[in-house]
Amino acid sequence: MVSNYFFRLKVAPAVTSCAARFCSSGSEDQSSYQCANWKHILAGLLAGTGAVLVYSQHRHKAERADVSVTITEKGSLLPVFSQDEVTKHRSLEDGVWVTYKGGVYDITEFVAMHPGGNKILLAAGGALEPFWALYAVHDQEHVLEILSEYKVGELCEEDLKKQQASKPSDPFSSDPERHPVLQVNTLKPFNAEPPPEILSDSYITPSAFFFKRNHLPVPQLDQASYRLQVEGLPQGVLSLSLEDLKTKFPKHTVTVTLQCAGNRRGDMNKVKPVKGLNWGVAAIGNAKWSGARLRDVLLAAGFEPGVAQWARHVQFEGLDKDVTGTSYGASIPLNKAIGEEGDVLLAYEMNGEDIPRDHGYPVRVVVPGVVGARNVKWLGKIVVSAEESSSHWQQQDYKGFAPGTDWNQVDFESAPAIQELPVQSAITVPADGAVIHHSDETLTVAGYAWSGGGREVIRVDVSLDGGKTWQVAQLRSGDKGQAPEPSPPPGRAWAWKLWEITAPLPPEAEELEIICKAVDSSYNVQPDTVPPIWNLRGLLSNAWHRVTVRLRRD
Amino acid sequence: MVSNYFFRLKVAPAVTSCAARFCSSGSEDQSSYQCANWKHILAGLLAGTGAVLVYSQHRHKAERADVSVTITEKGSLLPVFSQDEVTKHRSLEDGVWVTYKGGVYDITEFVAMHPGGNKILLAAGGALEPFWALYAVHDQEHVLEILSEYKVGELCEEDLKKQQASKPSDPFSSDPERHPVLQVNTLKPFNAEPPPEILSDSYITPSAFFFKRNHLPVPQLDQASYRLQVEGLPQGVLSLSLEDLKTKFPKHTVTVTLQCAGNRRGDMNKVKPVKGLNWGVAAIGNAKWSGARLRDVLLAAGFEPGVAQWARHVQFEGLDKDVTGTSYGASIPLNKAIGEEGDVLLAYEMNGEDIPRDHGYPVRVVVPGVVGARNVKWLGKIVVSAEESSSHWQQQDYKGFAPGTDWNQVDFESAPAIQELPVQSAITVPADGAVIHHSDETLTVAGYAWSGGGREVIRVDVSLDGGKTWQVAQLRSGDKGQAPEPSPPPGRAWAWKLWEITAPLPPEAEELEIICKAVDSSYNVQPDTVPPIWNLRGLLSNAWHRVTVRLRRD
Repeated sequence: MVSNYFFRLKVAPAVTSCAARFCSSGSEDQSSYQCANWKHILAGLLAGTGAVLVYSQHRHKAERADVSVTITEKGSLLPVFSQDEVTKHRSLEDGVWVTYKGGVYDITEFVAMHPGGNKILLAAGGALEPFWALYAVHDQEHVLEILSEYKVGELCEEDLKKQQASKPSDPFSSDPERHPVLQVNTLKPFNAEPPPEILSDSYITPSAFFFKRNHLPVPQLDQASYRLQVEGLPQGVLSLSLEDLKTKFPKHTVTVTLQCAGNRRGDMNKVKPVKGLNWGVAAIGNAKWSGARLRDVLLAAGFEPGVAQWARHVQFEGLDKDVTGTSYGASIPLNKAIGEEGDVLLAYEMNGEDIPRDHGYPVRVVVPGVVGARNVKWLGKIVVSAEESSSHWQQQDYKGFAPGTDWNQVDFESAPAIQELPVQSAITVPADGAVIHHSDETLTVAGYAWSGGGREVIRVDVSLDGGKTWQVAQLRSGDKGQAPEPSPPPGRAWAWKLWEITAPLPPEAEELEIICKAVDSSYNVQPDTVPPIWNLRGLLSNAWHRVTVRLRRD
Repeated sequence: MVSNYFFRLKVAPAVTSCAARFCSSGSEDQSSYQCANWKHILAGLLAGTGAVLVYSQHRHKAERADVSVTITEKGSLLPVFSQDEVTKHRSLEDGVWVTYKGGVYDITEFVAMHPGGNKILLAAGGALEPFWALYAVHDQEHVLEILSEYKVGELCEEDLKKQQASKPSDPFSSDPERHPVLQVNTLKPFNAEPPPEILSDSYITPSAFFFKRNHLPVPQLDQASYRLQVEGLPQGVLSLSLEDLKTKFPKHTVTVTLQCAGNRRGDMNKVKPVKGLNWGVAAIGNAKWSGARLRDVLLAAGFEPGVAQWARHVQFEGLDKDVTGTSYGASIPLNKAIGEEGDVLLAYEMNGEDIPRDHGYPVRVVVPGVVGARNVKWLGKIVVSAEESSSHWQQQDYKGFAPGTDWNQVDFESAPAIQELPVQSAITVPADGAVIHHSDETLTVAGYAWSGGGREVIRVDVSLDGGKTWQVAQLRSGDKGQAPEPSPPPGRAWAWKLWEITAPLPPEAEELEIICKAVDSSYNVQPDTVPPIWNLRGLLSNAWHRVTVRLRRD
């Protein structure tokens, strides 16, 4: 049954067939490569992470001096290539070629500029269409414009017909239904957040309103055939069914806030465009997660103190896969995974029910205090390792950089993968731009606050005058009128606080700039402004949150 | 020998004798109390923490309506009280009276305003002089002015003579010699920091240049008679000699940066005066500490998992004492103390030598990642407890508050005691106001960066143009030309990083505003500006550090 997951995606056969032709091709006409090469026209663009939306940063680096070629309609001056020819160009050394609707594109020099990183190489030598079906972010006019710059030829009629005969189906066709109240960032993969005012209405976020952040299509998994592999320990591989997880290990329930590294990216986009989903303030939610402790499972799989001599990380692989069969993956430091106070769960329930498909059914990792991206959904494999996950999302994404670092200079190896997140807060009520009537006399401001690493939020300051004066908000660890959650032990405050303040409306004011900022138990604070923390991926956006409201007298 | 410590201070007998009189006094003339009371003139001011320097915030809260009294010279209109009368007023209910140079002062209403908190009550009913000898911060003209407002009478001649006969000696007379390069904040108790440029010249701070932060006189202890008591565990009290600590437990060496909670308080004072020593940027240092692990000692003393069912804190008591015999004290959370990754030491060496007297000879606690104030020096007692330390410095000091909180509103119970500190960095070279010659062509900026809780500094950004653009500095975990310290495990980065950047001088500039800001491994950042983190005690001052230099052409 496990192999099923690897070939579940309908697009896989098309890619496989491309690869087969590449392997069987032995006769290479060096001149046709030269023919394309002397032109030195760069072409193409293809697979990327679902996270990538904005292409406005694109800069064409090719030197066009000494080049004079007319881009023409099909069948004109450009040479015609067979699929075999195209398939030979699958590396930076041999050139990176792709096809799209009968055109052939040499995108070698674009690879370094691809917002989705090296994943673009997965499409080398083959057709773009199945990747673009997977990463629907490419379905935009300016993406086609960029691609057109890299055209070097046409695919021969015969191979084009073969390609068209194996059209990929929509890999997202089996995604679950979602609640229409969600504000959708991308449909494929599905990324959406609730309206902010819903967020602060409930200490526990209902699953339907919990932000969805998918990198790939939602896999179709069933609990009877589900298996979790635990690897890398001296004892060998441990394979667990869902029933094993539920019956062989104590069930723990922990209230944990999860936040996307890109939450509040919208604020960074206002300063200067960044690459990524344009999240508002609601890519965060707080739920009760229940499951087995990762620590208990690792111990059952044979973890003993000697392992800590060589192991440093615990890697997670999802059962969601791209067209090449590559899973979503991430890792966390070993001490977080095995520590008694890490509270890492292999969760099979969210808010007292089976985890919904969008949130990782049947099992996901919940890593309290750590960025959402490491809380791998649809968990298929756990590997205890000396190395971090080699996944694109661990190595080439979800890292922070200095405001002066751009896509031409960025060295992903220079920054550590984001794990614990910094202190955060946001105003959920009132909305930015809201109109308040002076007859209301008082104004209620509400929101959430949270910090990573188990650091409890100890105070939220609110200003109604753009930061000149500050009042201390009331914090809540539960719903109004209900008993608050018990105080967490030090360093294990995994859940957010909701906060609220009601203040008299300043009688003369026509406009209020409302700001919130939180302080955590290490007395870390949020930075005042966005530009000094701006970074090219728009991550870690935790400057003071500001909304402006107008006061009306009528 | 232990009892010696309790009575070592020569001032103790004077206080004892006051207390004795209070106890033996049975006949109280109600009218004389009334006499003082109807006037309702508030008086006095006395013992405080050594941390308190600034009295400019003082506000007199007494209602003076209906009161008409002339303050006169000695023996004039004001009533004369016996020491017995004065001694009856030792509480907020009975009134808080003190004497100073023959005057009697009713300071009841000043107690709430005393910058040093409730410690003022220690002097109630007695003479101020011995306390002011201990807390030399009071030796300032405006302190006497405040005191004069609270005068209610004169001490009778006979008791004044007795008082003068028992003059306290200087409790600081046996303090050690210090290096003259240190910039002294207060002499008694001794508080001083090195010049900033020394700090960044050496990855390991030499003990002589390591900032000194004493709350009380340095006790005279000798290693032969030294005993450390470990209390609160089911097994009873464990008493350890220095020899025991050195021979019965493995010796661990950890490089740990210690920072005073008040480091960079000077920046807050520039915004609005705060109470506390006016530290510059050098109340921080990095040393190699060696000793027994607290964890090992607690296990030897009988700690077992059951203790964690009721215990929450580990308290420390110093052997430094005030005139009443009260020790400096603090506590840390139990999980930090007992955790395998807490790395808490009972250190007997600093940089490979016996710990110098100013730094806690013969034994101090070193709590990596935690504010200096919990790293108790001259350690005499460890208590495993359900409660935090009841010490003034744990309960009424070293806590953070909102910028709007003033001394009239502050509720020390509303904020947690500072433990882990937030991310910090500062420029040590060039100095603020330095003049740079354009002929130099390049400018080198250097400094330190550190974060609490074992969070490693992963990046320091430096701006030469007041924050418009940023460059990434080079980080060092060792001295130039020497091997860096090995990378710490995640969450155990206890030592600072030194950083440096060399940049071309902007040819047209006449002045540069240089700024640094650090990022730690949880991607916490420093706030942009000081006012939004200003707090009445001037703690946790970690906004961007700024220095301005002038460029000269000749």
